[in-house]
Amino acid sequence: MRARVLGSAAGGGFPQWNCACDNCVLVRAGDARVVARTQDCLAIEQQSRWLLVNASPDVLRQIEATRELHPRALRDTPIAAIALTNGDLDHVLGLFSLRESQPLVFYATERVFSGLMERNAIAHTLRRFSGQLTYRRLVIGEPCAVPELGDVTITAFASPGKLPVHLIHALEPHAEDNVGLRITGSGTTLTCATSVRDVRAVVSHLAPSDVLLLDGTFWSSDELVTQRVGSARAEDMAHHPIGGDRGSIAALASVEHLGRKILTHINNTNPILREDSPERAWVARMGWEIAHDGMTVLT
Amino acid sequence: MRARVLGSAAGGGFPQWNCACDNCVLVRAGDARVVARTQDCLAIEQQSRWLLVNASPDVLRQIEATRELHPRALRDTPIAAIALTNGDLDHVLGLFSLRESQPLVFYATERVFSGLMERNAIAHTLRRFSGQLTYRRLVIGEPCAVPELGDVTITAFASPGKLPVHLIHALEPHAEDNVGLRITGSGTTLTCATSVRDVRAVVSHLAPSDVLLLDGTFWSSDELVTQRVGSARAEDMAHHPIGGDRGSIAALASVEHLGRKILTHINNTNPILREDSPERAWVARMGWEIAHDGMTVLT
Repeated sequence: MRARVLGSAAGGGFPQWNCACDNCVLVRAGDARVVARTQDCLAIEQQSRWLLVNASPDVLRQIEATRELHPRALRDTPIAAIALTNGDLDHVLGLFSLRESQPLVFYATERVFSGLMERNAIAHTLRRFSGQLTYRRLVIGEPCAVPELGDVTITAFASPGKLPVHLIHALEPHAEDNVGLRITGSGTTLTCATSVRDVRAVVSHLAPSDVLLLDGTFWSSDELVTQRVGSARAEDMAHHPIGGDRGSIAALASVEHLGRKILTHINNTNPILREDSPERAWVARMGWEIAHDGMTVLT
Repeated sequence: MRARVLGSAAGGGFPQWNCACDNCVLVRAGDARVVARTQDCLAIEQQSRWLLVNASPDVLRQIEATRELHPRALRDTPIAAIALTNGDLDHVLGLFSLRESQPLVFYATERVFSGLMERNAIAHTLRRFSGQLTYRRLVIGEPCAVPELGDVTITAFASPGKLPVHLIHALEPHAEDNVGLRITGSGTTLTCATSVRDVRAVVSHLAPSDVLLLDGTFWSSDELVTQRVGSARAEDMAHHPIGGDRGSIAALASVEHLGRKILTHINNTNPILREDSPERAWVARMGWEIAHDGMTVLT
């Protein structure tokens, strides 16, 4: 089982289209300390077939940037399946770019799948003909085989978070709204938890892992406020900030049986995006890596 | 009034993610005869404020590729308004990437707007707060002021086409499903008709124009069939092919008072994408240009 990060930014990407925070200004200026990032997406391979974890709005350029994901026949894709961790637009909008009558298999909880497919007329584009879309339900705590990729299995675990912004007024919160995934294959385990409101609520599901991809959205709770780009705190947006004594990195310091520990889903305002920031240096000292687009996380 | 093509490909873009037709293979190989293209989008400027005509799934990278569309303040966009010609996903999906609580004004027919906003839960992301989204209705034949851009006005004309694939089973066809736009400002007229089933049905609306952007999706009716990538004919997909005696270019040969004549919304299978093709040479001899991403069409 191999894995590669296709996109490592939070919703909006880096730079974000309507943002001129310090980081966004630097990256548009071509400053060597920062690298542009597309929105959160992970690709996992076994037997030359690929599973996407989430489908970001940037999925078409992520595919074109990844030679192994190009078609190998006249109409074809090596992407066999897509697993969703929640229904946030930065995780699902790309699904509607993966049409052109291409059969696909979706893995998602019933809440995430129905919130997407039954409440949006545009979803019919993925159901133009019988057999275009195959749905396999993820149930929290139950391993789900992914036969498209040999012996790969996915096990979802609850990651208390929030409903997608566009469903908050329509639905009551539910444990299946937001999940982390433990993905195993060939004796290797990759754990992915990129939307984590409180890392203490999921810590029991993170180890053992050969690779852990963790929510690195915000450095601090008040990051948007102090940079004057928003009024919400990290916790309001269901993300546990990574820095400081109460941050997620400190909370996981004593957890054993974690191999590579990688932060991803990084917001454009996060100081860890700058190569020369003290925050980035601290993250490295604590034994964590910072994801970038195209990063191989499992070989 | 200035205008620039942000994206010049039909739905799916060029290359298309799941296609290995001759053109897609060439462009992925970096062949100098072809240039990659993102999906159909046009940007029009007056008084340093911009109107997008359609919002393609590639809108975020189109914005980043266009310096004038970058924010000029901490949270800001020079994009003041978006006009839609139909509800096809390659024209509307990008709207859901233009959120981040940014106020925007939409111009669309009532059919296109309601098909999008009332039938899709994800549309709530554009209505998080009062005033985020302002809708101004386009009515066929009635000039509609665009005060965000000085003296610019938009006049929609019916362009008989088809419903978006995802609404075909839900709605009866209607004249407002698909329109062309005549956009005037500072004494200049740009006409945009990128989904045209039969050019004879719209010819009376095309002139006079300083710039005409026309549906250049397919060279021939049977292009998908002969290249073995599909079974539909151009007309089945509501596009008038451009080539040959019965093509749109021949049909417009005697129309006067057209300034620059430009083909856009070009499908990945279209031979005019290759610099050395006889079809491209013929198009040039007939007095037409072929759009590319970043092309300035009005200065």
